[in-house]
Amino acid sequence: MDMNKHVKRLEALDARGLYGKDFLLTWEKTDDELNAVFAVADALRALREANISPRVFDSGLAVSVFRDNSTRTRFSFASACNLLGLVAQDFDEGKSQVAHGETVRETANMVSFMAEAIGIRDDMYIGKGNRYMREVAKAVQEGYRDGVLERRPTIVNLQCDMDHPTQCMADMLHILHTFGGAENLRGKKIAMTWAYSPSYGKPLSVPQGIIGLMTRFGMHVTLAHPQGYEVMRETEAVACQNAAGSGGSFTKTHSMEEAFEGADIVYPKSWAPFAAMETRTNLYGQGDFDGIKALEKELLLTNARHKDWTCTEALMEATRNGKALYMHCLPADITGVSCERGEVEASVFDRYRMPLYKEAGFKPYVIAAMIFLQRIQNPAAVLAELAAKGTSRAPD
Amino acid sequence: MDMNKHVKRLEALDARGLYGKDFLLTWEKTDDELNAVFAVADALRALREANISPRVFDSGLAVSVFRDNSTRTRFSFASACNLLGLVAQDFDEGKSQVAHGETVRETANMVSFMAEAIGIRDDMYIGKGNRYMREVAKAVQEGYRDGVLERRPTIVNLQCDMDHPTQCMADMLHILHTFGGAENLRGKKIAMTWAYSPSYGKPLSVPQGIIGLMTRFGMHVTLAHPQGYEVMRETEAVACQNAAGSGGSFTKTHSMEEAFEGADIVYPKSWAPFAAMETRTNLYGQGDFDGIKALEKELLLTNARHKDWTCTEALMEATRNGKALYMHCLPADITGVSCERGEVEASVFDRYRMPLYKEAGFKPYVIAAMIFLQRIQNPAAVLAELAAKGTSRAPD
Amino acid sequence: MDMNKHVKRLEALDARGLYGKDFLLTWEKTDDELNAVFAVADALRALREANISPRVFDSGLAVSVFRDNSTRTRFSFASACNLLGLVAQDFDEGKSQVAHGETVRETANMVSFMAEAIGIRDDMYIGKGNRYMREVAKAVQEGYRDGVLERRPTIVNLQCDMDHPTQCMADMLHILHTFGGAENLRGKKIAMTWAYSPSYGKPLSVPQGIIGLMTRFGMHVTLAHPQGYEVMRETEAVACQNAAGSGGSFTKTHSMEEAFEGADIVYPKSWAPFAAMETRTNLYGQGDFDGIKALEKELLLTNARHKDWTCTEALMEATRNGKALYMHCLPADITGVSCERGEVEASVFDRYRMPLYKEAGFKPYVIAAMIFLQRIQNPAAVLAELAAKGTSRAPD
Repeated sequence: MDMNKHVKRLEALDARGLYGKDFLLTWEKTDDELNAVFAVADALRALREANISPRVFDSGLAVSVFRDNSTRTRFSFASACNLLGLVAQDFDEGKSQVAHGETVRETANMVSFMAEAIGIRDDMYIGKGNRYMREVAKAVQEGYRDGVLERRPTIVNLQCDMDHPTQCMADMLHILHTFGGAENLRGKKIAMTWAYSPSYGKPLSVPQGIIGLMTRFGMHVTLAHPQGYEVMRETEAVACQNAAGSGGSFTKTHSMEEAFEGADIVYPKSWAPFAAMETRTNLYGQGDFDGIKALEKELLLTNARHKDWTCTEALMEATRNGKALYMHCLPADITGVSCERGEVEASVFDRYRMPLYKEAGFKPYVIAAMIFLQRIQNPAAVLAELAAKGTSRAPD
Repeated sequence: MDMNKHVKRLEALDARGLYGKDFLLTWEKTDDELNAVFAVADALRALREANISPRVFDSGLAVSVFRDNSTRTRFSFASACNLLGLVAQDFDEGKSQVAHGETVRETANMVSFMAEAIGIRDDMYIGKGNRYMREVAKAVQEGYRDGVLERRPTIVNLQCDMDHPTQCMADMLHILHTFGGAENLRGKKIAMTWAYSPSYGKPLSVPQGIIGLMTRFGMHVTLAHPQGYEVMRETEAVACQNAAGSGGSFTKTHSMEEAFEGADIVYPKSWAPFAAMETRTNLYGQGDFDGIKALEKELLLTNARHKDWTCTEALMEATRNGKALYMHCLPADITGVSCERGEVEASVFDRYRMPLYKEAGFKPYVIAAMIFLQRIQNPAAVLAELAAKGTSRAPD
Repeated sequence: MDMNKHVKRLEALDARGLYGKDFLLTWEKTDDELNAVFAVADALRALREANISPRVFDSGLAVSVFRDNSTRTRFSFASACNLLGLVAQDFDEGKSQVAHGETVRETANMVSFMAEAIGIRDDMYIGKGNRYMREVAKAVQEGYRDGVLERRPTIVNLQCDMDHPTQCMADMLHILHTFGGAENLRGKKIAMTWAYSPSYGKPLSVPQGIIGLMTRFGMHVTLAHPQGYEVMRETEAVACQNAAGSGGSFTKTHSMEEAFEGADIVYPKSWAPFAAMETRTNLYGQGDFDGIKALEKELLLTNARHKDWTCTEALMEATRNGKALYMHCLPADITGVSCERGEVEASVFDRYRMPLYKEAGFKPYVIAAMIFLQRIQNPAAVLAELAAKGTSRAPD
């Protein structure tokens, strides 16, 4: 294993801004910082694949806060922490209740006396999830400043109402590996498109995160959805600005066909209309559960009008050489498999199953890389040390 | 501590077939392979008792999948994994739902990116539990083959509809220690008998596992139960075949007295009739919950007709010198203690409490040995290294 | 970091009585033993703050048994165990059911095959919690004696019906640090007073634990509460005896004003009347849930008559120089923040927030110190070794 390559790649980047900070939104990070996450993720993977332990912590907790059920994210986070030597400890606040102010301040400190990292997933309420993470960040920052916490745990956004940085960064790492590096992405077309699903209220964090991230690599990013399925306006603004800066483009369309036309990468996935999710958040705030039921019913009806938004073989045919990279954050709604009509035809999904699983496999490394860079002042030196030390992770 | 003795014992066995494989049924394993599990379990225990750490993994997850509540198995698995350096991470699929096909394939891979082992307990549905384990095995095998998984996690059956290998192997290890080795078991009589319990639907995995395993050591194995309480026919076939091969015997009777007569070992334990469990599985499949209730009522009534099937002092008197080894997988239904009428009289249970607890104490080591042998190519060499290194497990 | 200071402090104390025993009640321990816990807690903290790992276990489980929901205690226990190298494994017996006799004996052994420590929180039933801990202790002691358990796990009382030793010891450590040592506490006045809360049935363990512990340091301890809010008589007897022995005093009053007058430390906190809790325990025993509801209603009404028992700025004014140390075990009921009327005025709480958080921050170290002293025969030597070895806990 050639760790030197990874060390040099990391040393060429200015990633100092990550140290001691949180990872809440990709668009708050510089290109160098994002590339540092990719570099460290690759390095940690190389270490593990060479059976060299990347364990840097002898002890320490990693607090996980999940506001919904999440097997995959839970395992990704637990895997990442375990790899680094941290023990994931679940903090279950109760799923419906959204804690605020005093309570957040206090509990954030109470669970953090020996915490190195806090992973938070809070994607269910528009305007709340990312804000909650910032409340927690502020609380532990104050606790650290005032001597309550010996160390300031670093926060990783495991999905919020605005972004899903660990997913999108894993997606991007998958693209980088598939296309052979960032230099090959310039001018490529990626279609982030809505797709029909029989279920209701899927989060917006993936489409928003994808347009907010992929526009930074000089790609032509197309966002496609039926009318009414708008994402948060500020994330579109981020996408526009990024595209302008990177020499790529960001366009919108209401045609799935148009989006797929000549695309190098397609990401067809269901989500709920932003406006509806905002309404739902308000209904929750008012405790109006009848209103929520009515809204849900309405949304399912509206969804059902767009059953033709599905990733078919015919659509795939229209992509670049008929061979676009098909992506999904999983689990997908597969027509005839997990539902009658869904986001994708079974034959398309089948053909891309292994790449999809590999896409998901980057996530533990991306999470570990974020914690690594946010907690370690000289990450390149520590990587070199780990490789030199060469502690076996597992017996042969 | 003399590790050399254990190393030699292991080196004399051909256990290569365990490496990279799963432990699903004892009757799929050779005698040497089973003996290797016993040898490594003893070796790991010797290390721990000498306060030498048998930790072979620096990091890595061990996924646990439990389809019912299980404090004891959970702790046994967690203990085994912890001893080896793995962190047990619970994967809760939901208790009622039985996942299939696509879902199993996907989630098995999604939770396994950094998993070394997967422990599964799925004993509630006839024809499903063991099959589910094989689906998981196939999924991670494919994931490994296709480069999704860097390592192929090894599966340990923590109880299924057919067998309960970790329990029965622990039981056997207890017998080996009590009788001073396999050479002393030839010609001994063991009675696996049904016993009355006021509860309903106890799994068949223990009686099936016991007759499937104990028939391999030249013992005379008697299976006793009231008419109608048949176990799965294929496990009886396994028992017959094993007995023929080992020079022992496998007989059936409907008399508890006959089974106890002259027995060296007795294992009186309640279970549900196989046919009824099959019916229940089908009723579940049809969502017929009224049918299940009716079945349950009927089964309790049928059970109640056999309250005389209980391990009394008088029955114990009839065993070899009145001193047969009484065994149970725990918890037992003890007459006058945990219920009005149960599987065993309190005075019998009391006399054997400490041996019973010791019997249970072998289980973590058996699980650890299975993982050890399935993940380590040169287990004898690694044991020798651990002993030579002599890392303290705990302070004095 | 000067570990020598801590080692000498510990060597000057006779703490041999802690080894191999449990921590169930502070009043069962000698002064030297309590001081040893403080010394080791400070030493472990010093190690961690110097980034030196205090990990003494290479593997081993720490079983946690919680009879109610408890995020803070759970994290404190998990943090303490993780620091020492143990993995906390939750044993969920079900929250309502109180296991007894046979079941306790068996399960205590079944979960302890590889356990080094057992943390128990059982504060809901008067006369039950502490007794349950002793049942567990007896069970594992017997299991150890009879060769079932290779090691005898040590028990830490994480809150019972009588005492809350980890909380009170953390409180005391906070006092020691605030006042600069035990020599400065002689003659100081501490007011443990009842305070109004809109909720019902708060445990008595904190007031009882505080009067049982703080009376040992030559302080003047005043217990104040409205008539009818008596604590367990035997804990008052402990307080009297301790005060006599330490040269302090223990007095009771029904006036919050009197208690606060000239106090150096105030601890205003709600609790339920002992007699009512005893009644509730009996009602539970009888399964009389209507009776429990009626009792709860009555208690809330009685509580409401004492809304004036709240820690106001005016009351704080009356303490020594208006600057008494305000203490609470958290979470507090803060007037206008977490409830309309509560235990403390928001401005008082705000001024003491950071000290309160620091108070809570001692708890993981106190728990770790208890386990350390109860499991390690030569704790001073092991501390010196840890410092000499100097293994980094976390990367810089």
